[in-house]
Amino acid sequence: MLPFARVTVIGLGLIGSSIARGIRQHMPSVRVTGYDADPAVRETAVRIDLCDDIADTAGTAVIDADLVILCVPVGAMGAAAADIAADLPAEAIVSDVGSCKESVVEAVHAALPDAVFVPAHPVAGTENSGPEAGFASLFHGRWCIVTPVEGTAPFAVERVLEFWRRLGAEVETMAPDHHDRVLAVTSHLPHLIAYTIVGTASDMEEVTQSEVIKYSAGGFRDFTRIAASDPTMWRDVFLANKEAVLDILQRFSEDLTALQRAIRWGKGDELFELFSRTRAIRRSIIEQGQDDAAPDFGRAHD
Amino acid sequence: MLPFARVTVIGLGLIGSSIARGIRQHMPSVRVTGYDADPAVRETAVRIDLCDDIADTAGTAVIDADLVILCVPVGAMGAAAADIAADLPAEAIVSDVGSCKESVVEAVHAALPDAVFVPAHPVAGTENSGPEAGFASLFHGRWCIVTPVEGTAPFAVERVLEFWRRLGAEVETMAPDHHDRVLAVTSHLPHLIAYTIVGTASDMEEVTQSEVIKYSAGGFRDFTRIAASDPTMWRDVFLANKEAVLDILQRFSEDLTALQRAIRWGKGDELFELFSRTRAIRRSIIEQGQDDAAPDFGRAHD
Repeated sequence: MLPFARVTVIGLGLIGSSIARGIRQHMPSVRVTGYDADPAVRETAVRIDLCDDIADTAGTAVIDADLVILCVPVGAMGAAAADIAADLPAEAIVSDVGSCKESVVEAVHAALPDAVFVPAHPVAGTENSGPEAGFASLFHGRWCIVTPVEGTAPFAVERVLEFWRRLGAEVETMAPDHHDRVLAVTSHLPHLIAYTIVGTASDMEEVTQSEVIKYSAGGFRDFTRIAASDPTMWRDVFLANKEAVLDILQRFSEDLTALQRAIRWGKGDELFELFSRTRAIRRSIIEQGQDDAAPDFGRAHD
Repeated sequence: MLPFARVTVIGLGLIGSSIARGIRQHMPSVRVTGYDADPAVRETAVRIDLCDDIADTAGTAVIDADLVILCVPVGAMGAAAADIAADLPAEAIVSDVGSCKESVVEAVHAALPDAVFVPAHPVAGTENSGPEAGFASLFHGRWCIVTPVEGTAPFAVERVLEFWRRLGAEVETMAPDHHDRVLAVTSHLPHLIAYTIVGTASDMEEVTQSEVIKYSAGGFRDFTRIAASDPTMWRDVFLANKEAVLDILQRFSEDLTALQRAIRWGKGDELFELFSRTRAIRRSIIEQGQDDAAPDFGRAHD
């Protein structure tokens, strides 16, 4: 049985538009309504026929939904939830796709104290943004982490899990605070480091920006991909998951200082030991299907 | 006219074996001799028919060469050069593929004071190592930086440039010390950061290593690719290009501290400003053909 019959997607960026397309592909009988606060995005969504219906207001978008998914930057979740409060059907389940969960749980609960809210986070994406960047297979083989709050009816959680399974994702549940610590390591810190290194490289004096771009295949270009991600989304993530991010950042800085010292004092053995250890992690990621086994991410070499 | 007729490749890892294959593809009439200090690598090279001939000693490998390319880790360049000193023909040109140039120029000059040495660095690679990891198109569309030392005959430099053009590379010349500063930014720092972050992530207590691997698609997996690069090669690079690496690392740490402070004090505007700026760099890299335009490096999403 399909977990939901009428799904409303609020926010039609990369993730929201991928959900809409995924529903079309995997659950074609489900009616999808879309809404975005930006009229230009709504127009694009109509033009590319993204949903069965694009509503003009958040309220009309949710009026007959049995699942409403908030797909806006985490700093905008509270406002998006408040926008649907007056029109949300009592039996509808509300979910989201935010990259951090504790702050979103708090914001949505404040705006919709009586709603059944089942927070979710599909760990998937690309560096592109907007309704035209989405695609139906974005979630295939990726993990979707659902972080139910205490007291949520198990059946509501199970329907959200089943929804994500239908979109092709693997599902897992964990507590919101543990989610935020895990993602601080696997996603937030990497993005922060990538943004920093790209900034550092573009601020050099002796080495020109055109040289940095020209010789970026030496490794730098890898970092520029995630440093091209949506600035609003990521600003919000760092502000919302501040504590976990600052904690992991502190550990990273300590480790970097130790490595800096090893280089300064010529301790080749220390470098070699770390560089050998990190190789094994890559192997495990490939074995578990979380990255392409082809060298160089499978980039075309011709 | 072909720049060389008999090329010897010393060191048959990813880069050496890619050169051998590239010669086969682009200059089929050139005779390629290979040598590697490791007997197991020589055996593999014979088995996969990598070269026209695999020599048993470095001396016999170079005896009738007109180009000898040293493709060993930068810390082993001096020893590799010393190994061929007694048998190197007077008119042969010696070159290399090392990722830093000042230290290599010094080491090779000490071992081969009378040889014509034209240092080169193809800015290309994958995370894989060994003779079976190489492929003929590795250098297609990538830059090869040649760093001639003062007093080198222009014709010798031109022959090396032409050799790399024939392998499909774009060529550029610059001074060895400038090369080392440019590559510290575009290659050495990214590798160091990637190694660090993968180390940090695998040393957490509250977040398990299996969680890090499972949810790596949030960004972390991008870093694991270059952190899977050859440990010996990279240990040598950091020790050999110490000054430039420590300098850029200091700048990176300052920038990271500023960002950390912006997060702590909730300065969203500062974050947004940086995150918007870094997006433009990615666009330039793609426009200049230095990375795949497809989202997510063109990774398969199915």
